[in-house]
Amino acid sequence: MATPLYQTVIDTIIARIASGDLPSGAMLPSETQLGSDLGVSQGTARKALMDLEKRGLVQRAQGRGTFVTVRTPETSLFNFFRLRRPDGTLTAPRLVTEEVTRRPATAEETATLHGAPEEVIQIHRVRSVDGRKATYEVSCLPPSLYPGIMERAPLTNALYVLYQQAYSIIITRADERLRAVAAPPEVARALEIPEGAPVMRMRREAVDVLDRVVELRTCHLLNEGMDYFVSLS
Amino acid sequence: MATPLYQTVIDTIIARIASGDLPSGAMLPSETQLGSDLGVSQGTARKALMDLEKRGLVQRAQGRGTFVTVRTPETSLFNFFRLRRPDGTLTAPRLVTEEVTRRPATAEETATLHGAPEEVIQIHRVRSVDGRKATYEVSCLPPSLYPGIMERAPLTNALYVLYQQAYSIIITRADERLRAVAAPPEVARALEIPEGAPVMRMRREAVDVLDRVVELRTCHLLNEGMDYFVSLS
Repeated sequence: MATPLYQTVIDTIIARIASGDLPSGAMLPSETQLGSDLGVSQGTARKALMDLEKRGLVQRAQGRGTFVTVRTPETSLFNFFRLRRPDGTLTAPRLVTEEVTRRPATAEETATLHGAPEEVIQIHRVRSVDGRKATYEVSCLPPSLYPGIMERAPLTNALYVLYQQAYSIIITRADERLRAVAAPPEVARALEIPEGAPVMRMRREAVDVLDRVVELRTCHLLNEGMDYFVSLS
Repeated sequence: MATPLYQTVIDTIIARIASGDLPSGAMLPSETQLGSDLGVSQGTARKALMDLEKRGLVQRAQGRGTFVTVRTPETSLFNFFRLRRPDGTLTAPRLVTEEVTRRPATAEETATLHGAPEEVIQIHRVRSVDGRKATYEVSCLPPSLYPGIMERAPLTNALYVLYQQAYSIIITRADERLRAVAAPPEVARALEIPEGAPVMRMRREAVDVLDRVVELRTCHLLNEGMDYFVSLS
């Protein structure tokens, strides 16, 4: 089955964004230029840009051109951090403690993460919301995609922004599974709640623009005065 | 500020769907016909249809025309019931018990539900998943939108399909807030779990195509062997 022409244009642009050749905020060539560069019609170039815009990878500014979407701590937080106060307002989590280590991967991590790594970089963080320790997070990364990340610690509060700016890794989707569980001892200790108290366990696979699983995260979330908000349609 | 022409076309079609004039599965007029009926260009009619398609209200079949989306128990389940087995497979809940009653509304229900009702119809159900009692659900409806619904009990398993077929009420969005809580006594009894065991509490506002809150639902979900799946982007 032949790949449609506009899909080839999409793949080419995504590859240039992912390689860092078109960094966050960069202006893309015009439809005419893109068409002539890639040997396709202007209409095909336009269709590709419209698709990329729908996926949130680029943004078109009327009369100014098309730009690679800039992911800021704010947009990243808004899309991927779902805890809200009961009235729906968002409050940013603050970093309380962080430990970055390298350790052997579990069988599940090897099976799921891009490149089937034998070892992972583990980022263990506790964050607070509204002055109360509220999240216990363990993020695991395949080391080959994040060279030198251990030396960068302490890391920025918004990890996805760091992934994009330092490694051109653009998270476009997070698949989450949630479950109510009794707080395990280490979580209870860290969040200063009784062992066995109900907490929400969230497991997330973060997928990047090249459809690779580039991070596995397990969080335990304390729901005292906070809900996990989601809209289905 | 003038309403754009295509928005007028969208509103007209939505009103016809919501009134039952265009029932589920009905064919819409062609772009040309729609344009001449409503006094707009064919391009404007096309733009309106594309928007309605993006919102999932209509579906275009190449060479056959445009049809009002048929909501089946399967599509309704797939979109709005998020419990999955750990491998991601979907399993339909089965009705175990149901009680339909009419009672005074709480202040919150009056404030939130369409039409600020003084009374609500309450549908209380326990459903099982994979042979295990797993959901404890209380749904509240404004009586004026659902005339005679009490006489229809026992209701169909998929309530949203009933709402559309019997009342032309089309749910397009569900805003949910989730929290891990200790099982209250009545939930523990119904689901046959120890009082205080961790369960997920889900509160949902179901919004219809006319942007009205047409149902409030509170569920307690047992996560034994089941996760709540969601994809963020």
